[in-house]
Amino acid sequence: MAQYFDQVDNIAYEGADSTNPLAFKYYNADEKILGKSMAEHLRMAACYWHNFCWNGQDVFGAGTFNRPWLTAGDPMQQARHKADVAFEFYNKLTIPYYCFHDVDVAPEGNSIKEYVSNFSAMVDVLEQKQQETGVKLLWGTANLFSNPRYAAGGATNPDPEIFSYGATQVFHAMNATKRLGGENYVLWGGREGYETLLNTDLRQEREQLGRFMQMVVEHKHKIGFKGTLLIEPKPQEPTKHQYDYDTATVYGFLKQFGLEKEFRVNIEANHATLAGHSFHHEVATAISLGIFGSIDANRGDAQNGWDTDQFPNSVEELSLVMYEILKSGGFSTGGFNFDAKLRRQSMDRYDLFHGHIGGMDHLAMALKKAARLLEKDFLSEMVAKRYAGWSNKLGKAIQSGEHSLESLAELAVREQLDPQAVSGRQELLENQFNLAIYR
Amino acid sequence: MAQYFDQVDNIAYEGADSTNPLAFKYYNADEKILGKSMAEHLRMAACYWHNFCWNGQDVFGAGTFNRPWLTAGDPMQQARHKADVAFEFYNKLTIPYYCFHDVDVAPEGNSIKEYVSNFSAMVDVLEQKQQETGVKLLWGTANLFSNPRYAAGGATNPDPEIFSYGATQVFHAMNATKRLGGENYVLWGGREGYETLLNTDLRQEREQLGRFMQMVVEHKHKIGFKGTLLIEPKPQEPTKHQYDYDTATVYGFLKQFGLEKEFRVNIEANHATLAGHSFHHEVATAISLGIFGSIDANRGDAQNGWDTDQFPNSVEELSLVMYEILKSGGFSTGGFNFDAKLRRQSMDRYDLFHGHIGGMDHLAMALKKAARLLEKDFLSEMVAKRYAGWSNKLGKAIQSGEHSLESLAELAVREQLDPQAVSGRQELLENQFNLAIYR
Amino acid sequence: MAQYFDQVDNIAYEGADSTNPLAFKYYNADEKILGKSMAEHLRMAACYWHNFCWNGQDVFGAGTFNRPWLTAGDPMQQARHKADVAFEFYNKLTIPYYCFHDVDVAPEGNSIKEYVSNFSAMVDVLEQKQQETGVKLLWGTANLFSNPRYAAGGATNPDPEIFSYGATQVFHAMNATKRLGGENYVLWGGREGYETLLNTDLRQEREQLGRFMQMVVEHKHKIGFKGTLLIEPKPQEPTKHQYDYDTATVYGFLKQFGLEKEFRVNIEANHATLAGHSFHHEVATAISLGIFGSIDANRGDAQNGWDTDQFPNSVEELSLVMYEILKSGGFSTGGFNFDAKLRRQSMDRYDLFHGHIGGMDHLAMALKKAARLLEKDFLSEMVAKRYAGWSNKLGKAIQSGEHSLESLAELAVREQLDPQAVSGRQELLENQFNLAIYR
Amino acid sequence: MAQYFDQVDNIAYEGADSTNPLAFKYYNADEKILGKSMAEHLRMAACYWHNFCWNGQDVFGAGTFNRPWLTAGDPMQQARHKADVAFEFYNKLTIPYYCFHDVDVAPEGNSIKEYVSNFSAMVDVLEQKQQETGVKLLWGTANLFSNPRYAAGGATNPDPEIFSYGATQVFHAMNATKRLGGENYVLWGGREGYETLLNTDLRQEREQLGRFMQMVVEHKHKIGFKGTLLIEPKPQEPTKHQYDYDTATVYGFLKQFGLEKEFRVNIEANHATLAGHSFHHEVATAISLGIFGSIDANRGDAQNGWDTDQFPNSVEELSLVMYEILKSGGFSTGGFNFDAKLRRQSMDRYDLFHGHIGGMDHLAMALKKAARLLEKDFLSEMVAKRYAGWSNKLGKAIQSGEHSLESLAELAVREQLDPQAVSGRQELLENQFNLAIYR
Ligand SMILES: [Co+2]
Ligand SMILES: [Co+2]
Ligand SMILES: [Co+2]
Ligand SMILES: [Co+2]
Ligand SMILES: [Co+2]
Ligand SMILES: [Co+2]
Ligand SMILES: [Co+2]
Ligand SMILES: [Co+2]
Repeated sequence: MAQYFDQVDNIAYEGADSTNPLAFKYYNADEKILGKSMAEHLRMAACYWHNFCWNGQDVFGAGTFNRPWLTAGDPMQQARHKADVAFEFYNKLTIPYYCFHDVDVAPEGNSIKEYVSNFSAMVDVLEQKQQETGVKLLWGTANLFSNPRYAAGGATNPDPEIFSYGATQVFHAMNATKRLGGENYVLWGGREGYETLLNTDLRQEREQLGRFMQMVVEHKHKIGFKGTLLIEPKPQEPTKHQYDYDTATVYGFLKQFGLEKEFRVNIEANHATLAGHSFHHEVATAISLGIFGSIDANRGDAQNGWDTDQFPNSVEELSLVMYEILKSGGFSTGGFNFDAKLRRQSMDRYDLFHGHIGGMDHLAMALKKAARLLEKDFLSEMVAKRYAGWSNKLGKAIQSGEHSLESLAELAVREQLDPQAVSGRQELLENQFNLAIYR
Repeated sequence: MAQYFDQVDNIAYEGADSTNPLAFKYYNADEKILGKSMAEHLRMAACYWHNFCWNGQDVFGAGTFNRPWLTAGDPMQQARHKADVAFEFYNKLTIPYYCFHDVDVAPEGNSIKEYVSNFSAMVDVLEQKQQETGVKLLWGTANLFSNPRYAAGGATNPDPEIFSYGATQVFHAMNATKRLGGENYVLWGGREGYETLLNTDLRQEREQLGRFMQMVVEHKHKIGFKGTLLIEPKPQEPTKHQYDYDTATVYGFLKQFGLEKEFRVNIEANHATLAGHSFHHEVATAISLGIFGSIDANRGDAQNGWDTDQFPNSVEELSLVMYEILKSGGFSTGGFNFDAKLRRQSMDRYDLFHGHIGGMDHLAMALKKAARLLEKDFLSEMVAKRYAGWSNKLGKAIQSGEHSLESLAELAVREQLDPQAVSGRQELLENQFNLAIYR
Repeated sequence: MAQYFDQVDNIAYEGADSTNPLAFKYYNADEKILGKSMAEHLRMAACYWHNFCWNGQDVFGAGTFNRPWLTAGDPMQQARHKADVAFEFYNKLTIPYYCFHDVDVAPEGNSIKEYVSNFSAMVDVLEQKQQETGVKLLWGTANLFSNPRYAAGGATNPDPEIFSYGATQVFHAMNATKRLGGENYVLWGGREGYETLLNTDLRQEREQLGRFMQMVVEHKHKIGFKGTLLIEPKPQEPTKHQYDYDTATVYGFLKQFGLEKEFRVNIEANHATLAGHSFHHEVATAISLGIFGSIDANRGDAQNGWDTDQFPNSVEELSLVMYEILKSGGFSTGGFNFDAKLRRQSMDRYDLFHGHIGGMDHLAMALKKAARLLEKDFLSEMVAKRYAGWSNKLGKAIQSGEHSLESLAELAVREQLDPQAVSGRQELLENQFNLAIYR
Repeated sequence: MAQYFDQVDNIAYEGADSTNPLAFKYYNADEKILGKSMAEHLRMAACYWHNFCWNGQDVFGAGTFNRPWLTAGDPMQQARHKADVAFEFYNKLTIPYYCFHDVDVAPEGNSIKEYVSNFSAMVDVLEQKQQETGVKLLWGTANLFSNPRYAAGGATNPDPEIFSYGATQVFHAMNATKRLGGENYVLWGGREGYETLLNTDLRQEREQLGRFMQMVVEHKHKIGFKGTLLIEPKPQEPTKHQYDYDTATVYGFLKQFGLEKEFRVNIEANHATLAGHSFHHEVATAISLGIFGSIDANRGDAQNGWDTDQFPNSVEELSLVMYEILKSGGFSTGGFNFDAKLRRQSMDRYDLFHGHIGGMDHLAMALKKAARLLEKDFLSEMVAKRYAGWSNKLGKAIQSGEHSLESLAELAVREQLDPQAVSGRQELLENQFNLAIYR
């Protein structure tokens, strides 16, 4: 079989002095960091979606990429061609995981029956590809946003038949994920939101989405899927507003429907910044709420207000995020997924390698720097010292519920409290952080 | 006693043809709209804070206003002078309500004892002023953000003594609010957030805030305060990030600590837009979650990224918000509060009247337009029609929990579902909305 | 010939009491306002681009509209079909103008020769359509951004052959615009910007663009085109950064290349807000710089950071803009163009009418309100009074260049100047503005 | 004389392995980089303004810093105390330059005469301090925004007497800058903008500002000041909109008034991002326009929409900026000024050292990395290769003006041009950049 990437072999680790653009300089899969290999820490995955289902088009222009399997032809044949190229790529990249939407891998067909049979046939293909290459499935998902049917959403659609159509896709995608050994199942509600409040019943749509997610949980347990259910927050785009705006919003939603022990978040860096938060904030918030699951590593552009989904390249930012993750114990079933897209001008097919090699190297650099931060964890020391008062008598009494407003008001006057603020040492900590990561 | 606003008498309603800038053109307190007077619908309040405690200074310049009670002098005498002017203003404005922070009305003093005694003395003054003028208290609150002590927050401070100091203030402010017949008690966590994650324990601070709010609830019930507890979301400023970022975030927080039946939100228009939402969105979201309480009417500037707290003047936007509120049954204990601030260049003392008269008129205009929208409620009709499927057999079965992913997947294939999207009619609805409000 | 919009006749003015959604309520073409008809004031145009060349697809989903001429088929036959429907629409809408990009109306073909001959043939068709319907051309333009060739820009492309290809298109588009009686020729530099500074020579690209625009000017004079040359500022999207970021940036660019008397700006509301300015600001700035030309009426969504290109519907905002335009003497060759796009969910073909009828009515409403503002122009009165000092002795002397820093420093000390700030009356003016537009 | 910073001696370079927070790890003043010392490359300055004139207050709270010279007392005595501490700080910091606003260093007094005499007396003090310490003046400026007089601007004020008052200050500040050997004179138009267009005459204000700047140029030449005139762009805050919005806007303004050879820009990182640009963009744009002058190193917070003026700490971003500056030949009279402010919680007086030491070290790190980038300048190589076509026959002919639209259209058809886009290699370049700076 002809190879699409015939000019490249498997990408090798060559170390920081290598000048070979098609080699890793930092990502060394088996290198041990804090007792685990880099591969085990990072659990990286490449996607089907932007890599093999997108031809480079944007809202203002036609596709720029040469992707023969996206042109006219027999849909199932094209899907097989696409699978060949995708797994050629994953394999040559030596990335341990991949991930997909149902309709990334199989044609939708002209009826729901065709959808089911096409998808079933392609899951067979994927299973075989996984066996041949050893590439594993980080997560599967279903696309309930691209077909015109879902213009007003999937689970939150005003039409219960469309809800049912979406449920059918999720049913098959979950079953496929289980069969393929997927370690997580993700929901991304691309159109679970509204375009205008003028025609929207917020309470009704929220109830629909809650019921949909409960059905997903029930199905997970019914089929014995052992992976994690994930939801990927995003504030907007393509909708004006999505219901899974950010981590804190998702948490409230999960609590409302009793789902907070069943779902975790898949945080995308670009969605964090579109929501007005730092990537670090979203990760730290999810960890503090006990719902951190996985990462979609795509970054945004700080000056552009849409989802640019660029490959991660700020080692400074990634080091902060990695530090939080390591400090919390690292991933369980989650990992770093690249749902990133090339720039439309990156029309050379090997640009796919450059994007991923850079992303993987940058994560590896961040991992090493975060490990160094943890080895001499001045940040945790500072935090421990700063909140030390809460381990003292007054702090413990307050936290254990022994005090009321009244008892504190009495105490404050009786003891003539006059507590003074102390420096938060922000500049010093920022300096020390930089000194650590730029060693 | 010399009057500060000696050039103006009580503001009267003169109708839309009046050219008197110191008269209402639309706000006619006793005019009945949908069976209630305008005053009862709008329940408007003027504040102490920006009106009488701010001298016009900003980060780049000194105060521009002539406010003699803010200059040097005996603090209690100045506080009495301030109360005289404030109530002269509320009374002449004919606004039914006012509101305050504890340290707006009384000097902090040099010790916690002085704080308590100063505040107690000034509450006597306020009580007398209320009796003399008939002005009522919409809400009281405590300022846990201006004193340097609170640089790192009140309830979320790393120092439990500062937490206790804050509890003392809230204890007295709640008691005063009850005594003065306040209809709500508000928490605004100006510094309940973080400046940098590098020195912050998110989980710890969240726990502190949760316990603090539980104490507020316990104290409310203990003293038999019948008003509503409110929390005012704000995403940031002065902090980098506040824990009560927006309504959805507050909802999640309340659920975490079992407080969702005890607190409602006080939504500020400016804070909505700073959080990346429309004002309409925040109100509609709060209503859909059952936590809508009250409104802080200050708007922002669409091009400026900080809290400009301007007087409301978009009748288009206010009409949407008013429509949502009326449709949900209107305020219970809440109302429209103007926490707005004059522009720093509005240094004529009568500009205080222009700001408020405009704000009150714009709300009155919006009220009339919203009433018209409700009288022939094409929006609700459209929504009912759009979601009609959820009252049919399939929709009901899904919502009642009769279906699983599997049963829907079977049904979809069996019935060969092929549901088609229909127009959401956004442009038509926008046209009809404008036709209604511009009649 | 079968009509695409067979359920609708020509749209008529029925007045504000009409409940017919397919009628104008405010736009009454021949109604005189300040001595000119509404049609002459507003000079409105509908476009080819979003109306007839877009199938409803977005970055996350397939087309939702039923546009048979956009499906497979003989390209020239489809282009003729498209022209039939476009002119059926313009005609039924009773809009006086239309506008187009070269490749909106004619297929690009497989070579530059085919491009030339296809476009030439379609210009014949357009000429005939104009004659049949009386619809006129507000402006023509060339699309130098959709073809993959232009991924790195047209005039600013690193490849001079691509520059030349773009010049060829502009040559033919300008000639066609002249032949079709177009009143303006527009440049919109969709990809005249950069994706990353890492690979960009800013000075070189700026020089290329300057030379390109000089060639446009030279060609205009050579062929005797009497219309206005326009440039449409936009800050970004699809690029990270465009060189015609906003009006002030374009002004600097024009000055650099000596073009400020040859080009005017075509201001898009949505591009104004994406650049961090109010629509009002961009119009007022262009007028103050003497480069105001025309308007692209598409508005953005205040919470979304990309070009949503929605139909204008804020009468408040439009009234301010219309007031500025009327005060400056109104349009000369410019007008209001709708380059707006329906929402992707507005998949009913008659939604095209709803969008435009609303847009036209909203502009008509704004026109009437602006005329009222001008009749009793309290804003100009306030401005005249506020700057009155500049007509006095000192102000005149400064402006005429009689003073130096030194002479002013001497004068200030000699006369012991102690000037005091006075109120800018912002709240009062905002109130008066609303009172005027909501009469 | 008692020292304010009595716990610290002069800050020394101790190298990257030092754990002393009060030492430089990277800034080694005399270390040679590309043939010049670090000190000569970076030309760093500390300010008076945020360091010694601000007490830690923000819009929501009182001052948190212990700055005795800012409390009540004899103004001239306090000014001398302030100068003692400022120069103690500059000296211990071993920073070569400082900078000031007129009213930072001298009390405004109660009349313009007092202003003149106070300032004159304090300039004597500064001169002596400079001699004693060897600290030099990078630039001087006048504050035309803090006094209530300037609420509506200085040069753009509606009152020509206020314009004259401002001219007086600038006259004295320029004279003082010359006398003190300042290397630049800066204008920052904090309130040269508008709050609302409703009361603003844009053309008039622009003319006033143009004349003011011409007077500054005339005075410079008259007194023989050899330094550079700088203007510091900022988009907004405290105003809604400033006339010196960004570099491109300033360029247009300078061109309009014939000043483009007389002024250069002082680019602040925080103002760049508030204007919607990257810091890198503003610097690269200024260089490409020939108006790059100096840098105000304060960064913003990516999630906060106001001027946080934080100490620079992104070495990634600073390396890009430094690369541009070095590539353009480095500073002439400009340098890196820290107008940064501590966080309000950084209330320990030694936090002033931590902020500056970090800022200086981060710039030194960036300098070394930029030098490495230049040594093997793959970015310039890529750019040269990418634009190579413009050195060929066609490219040269176009640039030299030999071609018209018509001649290019003929050539394109004749030669059947069919140019194809090539990859812009963005991902690869981003990878290579990171590999270079993280060595
Ligand atoms: Co994602
Ligand atoms: Co994304
Ligand atoms: Co508020
Ligand atoms: Co506010
Ligand atoms: Co446009
Ligand atoms: Co647009
Ligand atoms: Co600055
Ligand atoms: Co700044």
